[in-house]
Amino acid sequence: MPINKIINKYEECKKAFSLSCQSNCLTSIFEELFELTYGYLKTCTKMPLKSLVAGKEYFSFKNDAKFSRSINSQLFCDNKLLIDEFFKNALNNTIPNQSAHDITVACYTIAISFCATIDLLKKGDQKTPGTYFEYFIGHLYGKHFGLEPQNQLEVLNLDMKSKLPTDLIFDYGDKKPKFHIPVKTSTRERVVQVWAHQRVLDGVYGTGRFLGLLSCLSETKLDHKKLEVVEICLPDQWRIYQLFIAQLQRIYYLDIPNRYAELNNVYPKIHVKEFGEFFHELTDLTS
Amino acid sequence: MPINKIINKYEECKKAFSLSCQSNCLTSIFEELFELTYGYLKTCTKMPLKSLVAGKEYFSFKNDAKFSRSINSQLFCDNKLLIDEFFKNALNNTIPNQSAHDITVACYTIAISFCATIDLLKKGDQKTPGTYFEYFIGHLYGKHFGLEPQNQLEVLNLDMKSKLPTDLIFDYGDKKPKFHIPVKTSTRERVVQVWAHQRVLDGVYGTGRFLGLLSCLSETKLDHKKLEVVEICLPDQWRIYQLFIAQLQRIYYLDIPNRYAELNNVYPKIHVKEFGEFFHELTDLTS
Repeated sequence: MPINKIINKYEECKKAFSLSCQSNCLTSIFEELFELTYGYLKTCTKMPLKSLVAGKEYFSFKNDAKFSRSINSQLFCDNKLLIDEFFKNALNNTIPNQSAHDITVACYTIAISFCATIDLLKKGDQKTPGTYFEYFIGHLYGKHFGLEPQNQLEVLNLDMKSKLPTDLIFDYGDKKPKFHIPVKTSTRERVVQVWAHQRVLDGVYGTGRFLGLLSCLSETKLDHKKLEVVEICLPDQWRIYQLFIAQLQRIYYLDIPNRYAELNNVYPKIHVKEFGEFFHELTDLTS
Repeated sequence: MPINKIINKYEECKKAFSLSCQSNCLTSIFEELFELTYGYLKTCTKMPLKSLVAGKEYFSFKNDAKFSRSINSQLFCDNKLLIDEFFKNALNNTIPNQSAHDITVACYTIAISFCATIDLLKKGDQKTPGTYFEYFIGHLYGKHFGLEPQNQLEVLNLDMKSKLPTDLIFDYGDKKPKFHIPVKTSTRERVVQVWAHQRVLDGVYGTGRFLGLLSCLSETKLDHKKLEVVEICLPDQWRIYQLFIAQLQRIYYLDIPNRYAELNNVYPKIHVKEFGEFFHELTDLTS
């Protein structure tokens, strides 16, 4: 059964990540997981969806029983060489050798292949795709930073000593940049948490000490009856959070929602970019 | 079937609330819902639970198929006169005629009767108890304020004009107190949203314009295998949120968690009180 093989490999991935988020062994596991899930999807049929998102087309993979989440046709890559190249670069720590867009396409194809396969082969499992995505994105950040992440920070403040649980934190050390990296497949109404956590970090450690890089897959929603795809976006609320709660440095998407892309054009800007850009701009972010 | 009667009455409640949160008609619907659910629970058996919460005892109602969420024995009231008195006061707008603790006991019994009945008669329905609880608490605030709530606020800020969706907002008008009232059956890890929304209100309208009154049922968690009850509390995180995100004026519970009650004793204090206190301290809150 393909699902057992995939779940066993996924369990291997969890174990490897807990030992080190940046090991080559983990890169190989992600590549094997990709081969398994991409291979499985090749046995399924593509079902076109009605996209209500301007300029984007979506389809869904279908097996005898179900169909998967929506997949962006322009980002799902049929050229396997591009993805092989990406994994080779990941192993050699040379991810920026590919263009930002090629990196994004490779990551989108890898991540959505896993998520779509779980949609098709497991019943009502929302958690596995979300956790997989955190590991995958955490792995790539870890490789590029050359650092292991922390999941909690010590708060030392007068009479208070406690642990603050956080999303991924990467810390270059004393007087060096630190990164606060929440990873979500989609944000929806809970996204205010991300700004609130950034606010706490700014308050406890000082503004500017932690650069917030929110990292997401997409914001599409598939109506299972009408087979229509929409993007759920709340740009006005994001502007309010960015003005009144805290500042996030970047918001990276694998499939950038149109209405969030527009936030790059209104002042004060929120920088919403495709994920691959990170590997080309890390130096700028910390300069 | 009792469940059909209850669901029909609940639908009536939703409609009545959308017309006016403070009508006597709505009070009567809550009383009828209470009679139906309390009456149903009388036909069930009480199953004792193992309480790991110091000083508190819990039980669960049981029918042929299932058992309900945990219920605090000291707060669940067998003296129906106390609850009849509460409803009479609610109709007459004289809720403060009862002591803060009696009000709390009445409200706990009313709310938990509905929630436990839904646990027993509907499958996997988390939403109905949560929404019911918002209506019930919203109704009592509305009655006592003599105001209808808003669910969104206009943000007018330089070039930005947008609607901010919020929890219940009660507004006495220009240069008068305004209240921001999030209502939750339990808070768990999502509670940071409440402080974040308070922060946005403080930022947009100015600190102190909106008094935040978080209103909750309890924080108990029942282990369905071991039949053990615990309270899930994160007091250190609450202190961090209160210090670094925004200030909530009160946190009201029907069943106050022990570890949150202790926050009344450490400086800077977070005021965690039983819900009935509100009806005796509204004047103090706004003076």
